[in-house]
Amino acid sequence: MKSTVESLQSPRTTVKRLPKRATYDRASVEAILDAGTICHVGFAVGGQPYVLPTVYARVGETLYVHGSAASRMLESAAGGIPVCATVTLLDGLVLARSAFHHSVNYRSVVVLGVAERVDDPERKLAALRAVVDHVVPDRWDEVREPNEQELKATLVLALPIDEASAKVRTGGPIDDEEDYALPVWAGQLPLRLVAGEPVADERLGHGIPLSPAAIRSLEAHRGARR
Amino acid sequence: MKSTVESLQSPRTTVKRLPKRATYDRASVEAILDAGTICHVGFAVGGQPYVLPTVYARVGETLYVHGSAASRMLESAAGGIPVCATVTLLDGLVLARSAFHHSVNYRSVVVLGVAERVDDPERKLAALRAVVDHVVPDRWDEVREPNEQELKATLVLALPIDEASAKVRTGGPIDDEEDYALPVWAGQLPLRLVAGEPVADERLGHGIPLSPAAIRSLEAHRGARR
Repeated sequence: MKSTVESLQSPRTTVKRLPKRATYDRASVEAILDAGTICHVGFAVGGQPYVLPTVYARVGETLYVHGSAASRMLESAAGGIPVCATVTLLDGLVLARSAFHHSVNYRSVVVLGVAERVDDPERKLAALRAVVDHVVPDRWDEVREPNEQELKATLVLALPIDEASAKVRTGGPIDDEEDYALPVWAGQLPLRLVAGEPVADERLGHGIPLSPAAIRSLEAHRGARR
Repeated sequence: MKSTVESLQSPRTTVKRLPKRATYDRASVEAILDAGTICHVGFAVGGQPYVLPTVYARVGETLYVHGSAASRMLESAAGGIPVCATVTLLDGLVLARSAFHHSVNYRSVVVLGVAERVDDPERKLAALRAVVDHVVPDRWDEVREPNEQELKATLVLALPIDEASAKVRTGGPIDDEEDYALPVWAGQLPLRLVAGEPVADERLGHGIPLSPAAIRSLEAHRGARR
């Protein structure tokens, strides 16, 4: 029977430091990608690495990266370019009894591969829809779609999610046995990205309420960490 | 008279996309670096870029990067290695009336340079202190300092902050003039990293209260965005 767990491990994605925290199954990788809002895309130009933040979306087994990060990348590579896209969610600060064992709780994913520019208009439109709806679920259907000119002005890169790793740290500090006797507070300070009060655009038409997508996005970013 | 504004601009750090959002003065760069918690470090191994999240600290004109990101980097470079360290703070979601003008509010800094391993024990200790105190201000003095073995087991990289850019987006959506008539909510959903209830370590000694540093860290991550 074929295993239902697909591994995205490769020698290049094998986590070297604290390998216990690593997983390589597609489901874990996808869950973290879907929970993030921005990714950091790395590429090298003449040996110099660049890391730029950008919005993104996952559609099936492809990561679509918005062109905001792509202009410098694309000027030096007409075809595919090796990239690394990393998504990190900071879940908390871990306060130990020794400086050495301080840590942070996080979920992160590293995807390696060759990113290619999406030129097909239909695929590009679908990718942009995915990016908008990734940042604010179901927002696309509330707003005006891109016209031809806007579509041309937007760069989209596609990165296959074939080679990836996920790394997760949860829980409290792990102190050295002899340090547990120290009379200092130790534990976790959970962190979460929380939405504040929405700020209506100053030119918002009179009586236009928060849209369903905006409300859902606020609710998704509300309250204390589960 | 010498200008008091020091520019960190170079051809390599000159922002290509939306250059209006960019600044290069040291004070702006430092303010964003000091406000972040984690950075994403990029480096290339045989043309393949890697981007790994890690904790860091700024001390004067140097960015210290914790070795959690360094093992793969260092295995391929005994001396200095070109890196890019990027810090991004996601400040909000920007909902426009068209898909194209959706955006996010953020502050980000990109630092380019050659990172070198810190070997001098005294400098390394000072860097680690800065990293711990960057994540949880004044925590270092509450906990046990690293012993010799722990110091040896920790890698620290130093990156001079000489060549950098900052990019900032604030405010509401900028829509096309004809779209302002669309009857859809537009505005900002501010986001902020907020602390939840502290979770005491299960082995915390009876009656040990939250420490001053933990309390200050909680307060710094409390409440709605200013």
